[in-house]
Amino acid sequence: MGIESLSYVIDTLYAIFAMTLIIFMVPGFAMLEAGIVRTKNVTAVLTINTLIYAIASLSFLLFGYSLAFGELGSDTMSKYAAFLFQMAFVGKVINIMSGGVSERAKVIPLAIFTVIMAAVLYPLVVNVTWGSNFLEGTVLELSMYDLAGSSVIHSTGGWALLAAILIIGARRGRYTPEGGIRVIPASNIPLVTLGAFLLWIGWFGFNGGSVGSIASKENADLVALTIMNTNTAGLSGAIIVAIIMQIMYKKLDLTMILNGALGGLVAITAGPDLYDIYTPILIGAIGGVLVVIGVSMFDKLRIDDPVGALSVHLVNGIWGTIAVGIFASNGDDITLLGQLKGILLIAIFAFVSSYIVLFIINKIIPLRAGNDEEMQGLDVDECGIEAYPEFKRAF
Amino acid sequence: MGIESLSYVIDTLYAIFAMTLIIFMVPGFAMLEAGIVRTKNVTAVLTINTLIYAIASLSFLLFGYSLAFGELGSDTMSKYAAFLFQMAFVGKVINIMSGGVSERAKVIPLAIFTVIMAAVLYPLVVNVTWGSNFLEGTVLELSMYDLAGSSVIHSTGGWALLAAILIIGARRGRYTPEGGIRVIPASNIPLVTLGAFLLWIGWFGFNGGSVGSIASKENADLVALTIMNTNTAGLSGAIIVAIIMQIMYKKLDLTMILNGALGGLVAITAGPDLYDIYTPILIGAIGGVLVVIGVSMFDKLRIDDPVGALSVHLVNGIWGTIAVGIFASNGDDITLLGQLKGILLIAIFAFVSSYIVLFIINKIIPLRAGNDEEMQGLDVDECGIEAYPEFKRAF
Amino acid sequence: MGIESLSYVIDTLYAIFAMTLIIFMVPGFAMLEAGIVRTKNVTAVLTINTLIYAIASLSFLLFGYSLAFGELGSDTMSKYAAFLFQMAFVGKVINIMSGGVSERAKVIPLAIFTVIMAAVLYPLVVNVTWGSNFLEGTVLELSMYDLAGSSVIHSTGGWALLAAILIIGARRGRYTPEGGIRVIPASNIPLVTLGAFLLWIGWFGFNGGSVGSIASKENADLVALTIMNTNTAGLSGAIIVAIIMQIMYKKLDLTMILNGALGGLVAITAGPDLYDIYTPILIGAIGGVLVVIGVSMFDKLRIDDPVGALSVHLVNGIWGTIAVGIFASNGDDITLLGQLKGILLIAIFAFVSSYIVLFIINKIIPLRAGNDEEMQGLDVDECGIEAYPEFKRAF
Repeated sequence: MGIESLSYVIDTLYAIFAMTLIIFMVPGFAMLEAGIVRTKNVTAVLTINTLIYAIASLSFLLFGYSLAFGELGSDTMSKYAAFLFQMAFVGKVINIMSGGVSERAKVIPLAIFTVIMAAVLYPLVVNVTWGSNFLEGTVLELSMYDLAGSSVIHSTGGWALLAAILIIGARRGRYTPEGGIRVIPASNIPLVTLGAFLLWIGWFGFNGGSVGSIASKENADLVALTIMNTNTAGLSGAIIVAIIMQIMYKKLDLTMILNGALGGLVAITAGPDLYDIYTPILIGAIGGVLVVIGVSMFDKLRIDDPVGALSVHLVNGIWGTIAVGIFASNGDDITLLGQLKGILLIAIFAFVSSYIVLFIINKIIPLRAGNDEEMQGLDVDECGIEAYPEFKRAF
Repeated sequence: MGIESLSYVIDTLYAIFAMTLIIFMVPGFAMLEAGIVRTKNVTAVLTINTLIYAIASLSFLLFGYSLAFGELGSDTMSKYAAFLFQMAFVGKVINIMSGGVSERAKVIPLAIFTVIMAAVLYPLVVNVTWGSNFLEGTVLELSMYDLAGSSVIHSTGGWALLAAILIIGARRGRYTPEGGIRVIPASNIPLVTLGAFLLWIGWFGFNGGSVGSIASKENADLVALTIMNTNTAGLSGAIIVAIIMQIMYKKLDLTMILNGALGGLVAITAGPDLYDIYTPILIGAIGGVLVVIGVSMFDKLRIDDPVGALSVHLVNGIWGTIAVGIFASNGDDITLLGQLKGILLIAIFAFVSSYIVLFIINKIIPLRAGNDEEMQGLDVDECGIEAYPEFKRAF
Repeated sequence: MGIESLSYVIDTLYAIFAMTLIIFMVPGFAMLEAGIVRTKNVTAVLTINTLIYAIASLSFLLFGYSLAFGELGSDTMSKYAAFLFQMAFVGKVINIMSGGVSERAKVIPLAIFTVIMAAVLYPLVVNVTWGSNFLEGTVLELSMYDLAGSSVIHSTGGWALLAAILIIGARRGRYTPEGGIRVIPASNIPLVTLGAFLLWIGWFGFNGGSVGSIASKENADLVALTIMNTNTAGLSGAIIVAIIMQIMYKKLDLTMILNGALGGLVAITAGPDLYDIYTPILIGAIGGVLVVIGVSMFDKLRIDDPVGALSVHLVNGIWGTIAVGIFASNGDDITLLGQLKGILLIAIFAFVSSYIVLFIINKIIPLRAGNDEEMQGLDVDECGIEAYPEFKRAF
């Protein structure tokens, strides 16, 4: 093997490794969401998670990849590995969205939305950020730096979710006519915890793999720094929320702590390769604080998001992209203004296009389950199987 | 480090990576099966899964490896890595078999069968396919192409399972005297989903690692193509079953969808390195259809297989091996006839030898739990611990 | 890329791979412990596991690493990868300890202990074993061989646990005034099994990564041998305990079998690179036997350790370190006396320092939950959320 093939081999191996870690996020999202929703909706949530992976990945193979990047190809690693790495991302955008409408959104219309998001909408966002960039040279050309998708992935998914919630509304009984908020407790905390850590581990591949190459001393350093900083932001996101919970409520609400970690991870995702090893502590901590504020704010706005996805992914996707403009040290190319322009354009495109697509789908096949179905839980009507049929319900 | 050592190092690292992914299939099978069986049999199922990994791997270390391959050795990577990769496969053959006899087969006789399968039967199959090949030059010499074991692993396990079911019979109450089939619902759908995705991820190591080397540009491409095609077949297997379920029953039965994915994964396993990137869509889809047909067919034949292992592993192991003969493009070496000969010889050897061994074991220590034990569930008698002692049963 | 950068790149990739496997031990410990404790304490256990990872890692980043190793740095791989690999170890020491005091220890004082252990106590142990060694040249200088921490990690955690149990006492009702022992069954066996296998897989990274480099033919062999031997000791630990359980009780107690595997894994950890491929069978089997003896012995001493951590980690940490002195074949540097000296010094330091720190913390914030809180379960008071709120309790 000559020296020239060497980096090709190593980067192919590295991309496969990173891709594999990202695929752990499929059960990661599935377990997290299955643990948060009520037992009567668990099978439906697991079904849509499974179908999202299957449908989004196949749609991206057949349509989306070429729309984002042009022909399948890569000089620096196997083109198949390059595809796999990009494919691993796609479903995540829709996972973010589906989690937030769980317990009332039906599987089939979400599956149809998955096709369109993975084949067209998300690839267009990728095209103008990481891809062949059809906006190049136009006034809309983006100069945003977003290594692994604080905006491209997390905000895009978050805006789609906001559009979906505005169309579909809150779960029955979540907000009382008197203005109260009914707490709906998570049904299975071990699953939530397992899911959160599978996501965390997947993030090492998500962000680390986005460096694109490990096959030089400089790149090896950059990859390791990226993974280290990614992890650090998750640590501080978890810790700050634990401190806030303890001070405010004297209760260490684990679901909030885990969402704090995930918020920190989203926030670091735009620029984990750009910071020194201490800055991520601050970025992650702010990410955690934003989760606490966001969850309460969206509830006040009566925007019902069972898993806190808007706070974790949308708010922190924006924050992470801004953070690059504030803290990044790689010089003149990155400007706060350029970051804000990227945030704004992705916001407009992702929200408007998702809204239109969901609006049309909703006219043809209602997104929302009927009242009786929602009361009974979606599992029986949608899937015909209960998640825990032998376990007696406490209520 | 000289260039000559380089591919040795990289392939050792790659084999360790692939092996690790395959080991995730140990909890994968365990969670899948624990989620499908009734709560009263969960601990027994987890116990046999744990013992299969321990006993099969140690038997292979002490006896099986040398029977299959001769002395521990490899020129292209560390011989220990080469061993680990092969060792990771062994338990899978027996996992396939133990899942299908769960809820009535006792742990100890299955453990004894595990020794014989891992020390003798499976190594003989490997010997004549991937190993030192004692049939070489005889009329029985196989020319079958089976990269990662559609036949060698999945069919072998499937034939052993069929032999076991014929000896042990169906679960009590599964088939009524009037010819009806009693549906026994899976007890824990999140575990089923988690298990299926751990298997899916493990498959990347299973098939990708079977390429044997990543340490050249050509091999890196081949590895990445193999993993991409493996994944694609899983995607289309899941999607086709979802479509069938929705059309036939208006219910997205998640356990069937996941089995569809696994069926597609088994089907691609014989030749993921041989196809273009679109053929796996077809192979996986046919795999999914075969799962749907198989599950219903075996039930009509009153062959009781709680986890659908015969449809997933045996039927699709055969289909995948045939598919190579139909679709493979690597030229003259592969013929449909050669594939069919391999299927047939493995069928005869695996079924007959497993039947004889299980028949003898059954005479000494009955494979099947007593009626009372089966009614009560196997956990109490076999293991002395219930899986969920604090949870009140609904029935 | 020149040849000189090559091993830097490969070893960085390898360290990241190994680190990632170790991080799977975070959900590994969490699931194992969540499955063993009663449902009323599950959220608290998951919360402390989450906080241990977050707090220990951040404390090590800010203080501990430099105390153990001096400045962040490495010539043979990215210094960030070197940090990540070491960081992945830290939380494990405290996981070992927290598991054994679960069901009665409060989260906040454990979190405070985590800071001190990760920032000071554990780094001091590392300093004199794997680190910059401030004892060098003194009479206390250690010559112990401990590749991946039978003593450094497992015994240290085990001694801290023993100190904690002596301070905090047994769970209410565990030991009756008449001298009886009340069996408290594990609440969720699938979680225990999942956790144990995630730990097992993590061990490949733990021990394999501790070789430090894979980037030469010799090192590739050493890494693969290390992982093979690690696995083998786990296999034989599980098998021997299964045999003992079957002979003594005619019940295959799965939690004991899994602890047997973990005991074997702890025992091999001091020298998996030093043995031939058969010796680990013996070392692991003795490890399994020690788990069975230990669990019963500690109960007779009324040292209440719900997860068996003392037997798995402390007893086998000692045994593994001794085993190197008995079986290791790398020549004159390793002596049984040197191993015993290491065991003794770590015992004294870890036990005494942990005892003092825990004693002081306990005076300020009581380690132990109040009687009412313990009876009700810690989840409600500590975290405000139950683990399985919708599932009706059987008792």
